[in-house]
Amino acid sequence: MGQLRIRSALVTGANRGIGLGFVQHLLALPNPPEVVFAACRDPKGQRAQELQKLASKHRNLVIVPLEVTDPASIKAAAASVGEHLKGSGLNLLINNAGIVRETTLDNETLKDMSEVYTTNTVAPLLLSQAFLPLLKKAAKGSPGLGLSCSKAAIVNISSSAGSIKEVLLWEFAQCIAYRCSKAALNMLTRCLSMGYREHGILCIALHPGWVQTDMGNSVGDKAPLTVDASVGGMLKLLSSLSEKDTGSFLDWEGNVLAW
Amino acid sequence: MGQLRIRSALVTGANRGIGLGFVQHLLALPNPPEVVFAACRDPKGQRAQELQKLASKHRNLVIVPLEVTDPASIKAAAASVGEHLKGSGLNLLINNAGIVRETTLDNETLKDMSEVYTTNTVAPLLLSQAFLPLLKKAAKGSPGLGLSCSKAAIVNISSSAGSIKEVLLWEFAQCIAYRCSKAALNMLTRCLSMGYREHGILCIALHPGWVQTDMGNSVGDKAPLTVDASVGGMLKLLSSLSEKDTGSFLDWEGNVLAW
Repeated sequence: MGQLRIRSALVTGANRGIGLGFVQHLLALPNPPEVVFAACRDPKGQRAQELQKLASKHRNLVIVPLEVTDPASIKAAAASVGEHLKGSGLNLLINNAGIVRETTLDNETLKDMSEVYTTNTVAPLLLSQAFLPLLKKAAKGSPGLGLSCSKAAIVNISSSAGSIKEVLLWEFAQCIAYRCSKAALNMLTRCLSMGYREHGILCIALHPGWVQTDMGNSVGDKAPLTVDASVGGMLKLLSSLSEKDTGSFLDWEGNVLAW
Repeated sequence: MGQLRIRSALVTGANRGIGLGFVQHLLALPNPPEVVFAACRDPKGQRAQELQKLASKHRNLVIVPLEVTDPASIKAAAASVGEHLKGSGLNLLINNAGIVRETTLDNETLKDMSEVYTTNTVAPLLLSQAFLPLLKKAAKGSPGLGLSCSKAAIVNISSSAGSIKEVLLWEFAQCIAYRCSKAALNMLTRCLSMGYREHGILCIALHPGWVQTDMGNSVGDKAPLTVDASVGGMLKLLSSLSEKDTGSFLDWEGNVLAW
């Protein structure tokens, strides 16, 4: 299995919760990346203070402004990351930014459905498109055959709530827009895995567990999992993935989930 | 098994293709419904001529103007149908209206993703919400225990292209927005089945097959299935469904499809 060995990674929604956890864990790897791009909506704002503190301590942390629902902002972020990488590629794109609305069948609206879909499903597609040249470059520049996260990968943070077969915790939180967006994100992950395999890019959908974040705590009082345990588990898992895993839907411990 | 015996049905996207086929077959049942509501965007327009002809022959056919992407239009249609039913309920809601775009991973856009999702996924949700009171009324007014399409049902016309496990015909047509919207529609169907079971409403996602319609012909030269065969198969199937089938994903011949 071993450690993840990458030169660069980008994490969306990086200012808090699981995104911030990814940034912290990547920086703390025995062989940390040469550069970690932490993308968030408002890098100078109040809600990015933790990230600002981290950046003052880690010269390999670069904060990138990114509004994932705005195609122009995505293109600008990709251009800025490309410039920063000075000709080398991006190994790891972690599409982590996501939102949830506590809606039900009775009160779900077109507005909620659209907004949640745009952030949770469309943005990961647009980000994958925009960073494809850099991911391809990383894949070409890495030694060895086959796919791996140390070479080039897109990691979509999905949810077990997106399992169509299970419809888990229905009695607890209906969240129609969220469930639909995550089922669609799983489909997108499958499509990406099929389209990008020839480019040497591994694509995966991960369920981080029910984690003690603002989002995790918003849907009930007792999220059981710490950010550290979830992110630590996911990074360990990512280091173990190979060709055969591309296009699958796994939880933070590596269990295969039902579509 | 027997025939479907319903007093009323509403079909969206009813002016052509599979929607028009449903209207024709419902009108031709040995025990036709007292009223079939054929909903389409522009009842007076050029593209609704077949429907106008049918309406001139069948007094139990009512054409209803409906733009499925407009919540106000959906509410107006539900109000108009409710008035027409004069206190009785609606047995069958067939969410058939749908669109496809021949997009690929490379050229898919936010606009395409949003528009296809709104029509294919959000509209069936909004229609289910708007017609819920009439569906509940039909369920209450029907004899017998358990669920059936003769009592009250929501039929969502999905597609095998929405199977996340299979990602069928990828080499042939990527259609990312369409695949994502249908995977999400399958999730919605599961949610509806769980929420509306207590109201006596059966909910199902159906793959009509690859049918000789404008849509079916747009993604290749040789759609193998006639509208008649597809719609005949689906109506026969609907008449056979019971409690145990709610929330499932079946093709026009009754085969269970993978999520």
